[in-house]
Amino acid sequence: MGKLREEALHIHRAYQGKLETRSKVKVDSMEKLSLLYSPGVAEPCMEIYKDKEKLYEYTMKANTIAVVTDGTAVLGLGNIGTDASLPVMEGKAILFKSFAGVDAIPICINTKDSEKLIETVKLLQSSFGGINLEDIKAPNCFIIEQRLRDELEIPVFHDDQHGTAIVILAGLINALKLTEKNLSNIKVVINGAGAAGIAVGKLLNRLKVKELIICDSKGAIYHGRPNGMNEIKAEIALYTNQNQKHGTLSEVIEGADVFIGVSAPDTLTKEMIYKMNRDPIIFAMANPVPEITPDEAKLAGARIVGTGRSDYPNQVNNILAFPGVFRGALDTRSTVINEEMKLAAAYAIASLIPEHGLNEDYIIPSPFDYRVVQEVAVAVAQAAMKTKVAMKEVNIEDLKNKIYQLSTTEVDMEI
Amino acid sequence: MGKLREEALHIHRAYQGKLETRSKVKVDSMEKLSLLYSPGVAEPCMEIYKDKEKLYEYTMKANTIAVVTDGTAVLGLGNIGTDASLPVMEGKAILFKSFAGVDAIPICINTKDSEKLIETVKLLQSSFGGINLEDIKAPNCFIIEQRLRDELEIPVFHDDQHGTAIVILAGLINALKLTEKNLSNIKVVINGAGAAGIAVGKLLNRLKVKELIICDSKGAIYHGRPNGMNEIKAEIALYTNQNQKHGTLSEVIEGADVFIGVSAPDTLTKEMIYKMNRDPIIFAMANPVPEITPDEAKLAGARIVGTGRSDYPNQVNNILAFPGVFRGALDTRSTVINEEMKLAAAYAIASLIPEHGLNEDYIIPSPFDYRVVQEVAVAVAQAAMKTKVAMKEVNIEDLKNKIYQLSTTEVDMEI
Repeated sequence: MGKLREEALHIHRAYQGKLETRSKVKVDSMEKLSLLYSPGVAEPCMEIYKDKEKLYEYTMKANTIAVVTDGTAVLGLGNIGTDASLPVMEGKAILFKSFAGVDAIPICINTKDSEKLIETVKLLQSSFGGINLEDIKAPNCFIIEQRLRDELEIPVFHDDQHGTAIVILAGLINALKLTEKNLSNIKVVINGAGAAGIAVGKLLNRLKVKELIICDSKGAIYHGRPNGMNEIKAEIALYTNQNQKHGTLSEVIEGADVFIGVSAPDTLTKEMIYKMNRDPIIFAMANPVPEITPDEAKLAGARIVGTGRSDYPNQVNNILAFPGVFRGALDTRSTVINEEMKLAAAYAIASLIPEHGLNEDYIIPSPFDYRVVQEVAVAVAQAAMKTKVAMKEVNIEDLKNKIYQLSTTEVDMEI
Repeated sequence: MGKLREEALHIHRAYQGKLETRSKVKVDSMEKLSLLYSPGVAEPCMEIYKDKEKLYEYTMKANTIAVVTDGTAVLGLGNIGTDASLPVMEGKAILFKSFAGVDAIPICINTKDSEKLIETVKLLQSSFGGINLEDIKAPNCFIIEQRLRDELEIPVFHDDQHGTAIVILAGLINALKLTEKNLSNIKVVINGAGAAGIAVGKLLNRLKVKELIICDSKGAIYHGRPNGMNEIKAEIALYTNQNQKHGTLSEVIEGADVFIGVSAPDTLTKEMIYKMNRDPIIFAMANPVPEITPDEAKLAGARIVGTGRSDYPNQVNNILAFPGVFRGALDTRSTVINEEMKLAAAYAIASLIPEHGLNEDYIIPSPFDYRVVQEVAVAVAQAAMKTKVAMKEVNIEDLKNKIYQLSTTEVDMEI
């Protein structure tokens, strides 16, 4: 048994899971009991009955999100089901709390039917101020997210899409500074048309990247491609690959400035990197085995390489995004998390490394820099207010202080 | 604005709800991140994938229950919906945690359709080790509980039925000691055929009370009654009212030793008490206005009176039962909470007041006596093991110590 395996099992067993609930108030007298429960609790109930908005004032809703999965695409493990997904959902929930003070609750919905999942989330929305979708396979994840965004009044965010996209974009912004290139002049090839690939493509399209091609296992996706298409790919074909290039990844990568792999191990070869433009930027995100190892990529001439792994430089880690994104969205009572908020998050992450501090091995800040959550939350809150999706104005200094205090209050439970 | 109303609204607003989540582990290093989340978390996932039982070892499931409602019968407020029910569900959740260390999560399911509610709970069961049903109207609550008991592998308990029934029974056991009567020789009249009335009736039937009559607004329920029946009333008619008495409450109460009201304000009159046997025992549980006030009941000759209110003696408060019941059920990994476990809980509560300590105004212990949860949990665990519904043996001393420590660890959050 490997060391990581042994230690991971030990820590999960020792704590018997990672998440617990806690009362904010000590219930230690008859008086408190009568205020917090019967008969006093009837008062906030009736206030909410008269005005639903009061949910945000008197209940947990304002600070609580659901971490929703159907267990169909858990980590790199695939469709292992809702039972086996629970350690991941608990893990996500404790990261939300530890990094951003967001109360998050695992909601594992044991169905493969998108309609049923959508309906279930809708039935459960009373107690949640937001929904983080997690580890749901493509293309279901796109449909589920879109429908929930349309049909719920609370923000919905599929982290495997947008969290990853935000952090890749943050890394790309800094990589372009180092290579002295601009989004408006580069060619980007994305390999992988799953959750993350599509989401990165959408953000880059919005930033008006000069040329953008998304590939799947059948090569470049283009409008009217006869095979291997689905609704989502047909949609992205409308706004990517404007020159209608056909061909394999190896063919369409020619002249590209950036490769973003969200696909499978060993799908990028040295030969492909040779064909790219000067100073190739490579994000090889397949996990745990990337599309190409950073060492090999460098040997083939890559200037900057990012992966999903913590044992290489430039780790693209969603944790840089999701805690701050939800902190900003919840504190502004945003009804959605829109593209402007995601872009703001990406630029906020990128901006944490000053230009003189950037180098090939340091384009993405550390998750343990508490300024990350602060800056992301602030940027997201500001973008929400600017785009009028915020139901509430938030004081930026208060928000910063709140996040700063998080880093000083968390303690280990005794085991 | 009354003082209680003002203070209740203030405390709910100050804390912005009462329940929060918390990480058991401080996530403060890359190493911890890699053990608690990716890549280490894949290890417990795969263990559970191979053996579902491991959920109880590596996740929150073993100590977490859902507090499930549809918002149709909230406190005495009625069908106010899931939004307005949330303060009650949060309140329940913090009581579970504060009194018994049980992690409890409000799950408000916004449907009036029993089938849909049942299906939703079934879809959500991965992360929960038990289900506490709450504030669901009769007769739906009976059907929902029965179906979930049959179809889930985790214990299901409708507190408005069984919590209330357990505590009434505990009070009755002690009241009978004072009046020197026995269950096998008494006549009991229950007024109200809702959740609590039916559940008390079932427990008393199991204890072979000599005569038991349940009334609703149409009077005594008997087999074949032509009007105002439903499936549940037809069922109870089979095992209650063996003498097939017809008539109003006022008629059938003649000669009764015990009146249990779980009905509506002012439904018991002095005249009715005059007709009862010597030393009448009255539980007048309608809330906030009881079936008769204790003062009036005493004037009419009642020997012992209990109500649901904290401002009269002998408060029948569910909090004496539900925390310990779930603590015992979870720690033994019980698949159900059966009648034996409920009876054990009732006797455990009753036994906390020694016979020489009993008096007319003290038949039920205080919820703030920590021995209550301890004794109930132990009795429930022992009954579970004895009736073979426990999947796990629990060490009784460990269980007692665990509960004792609860009373020393809870702290207020700063507001």
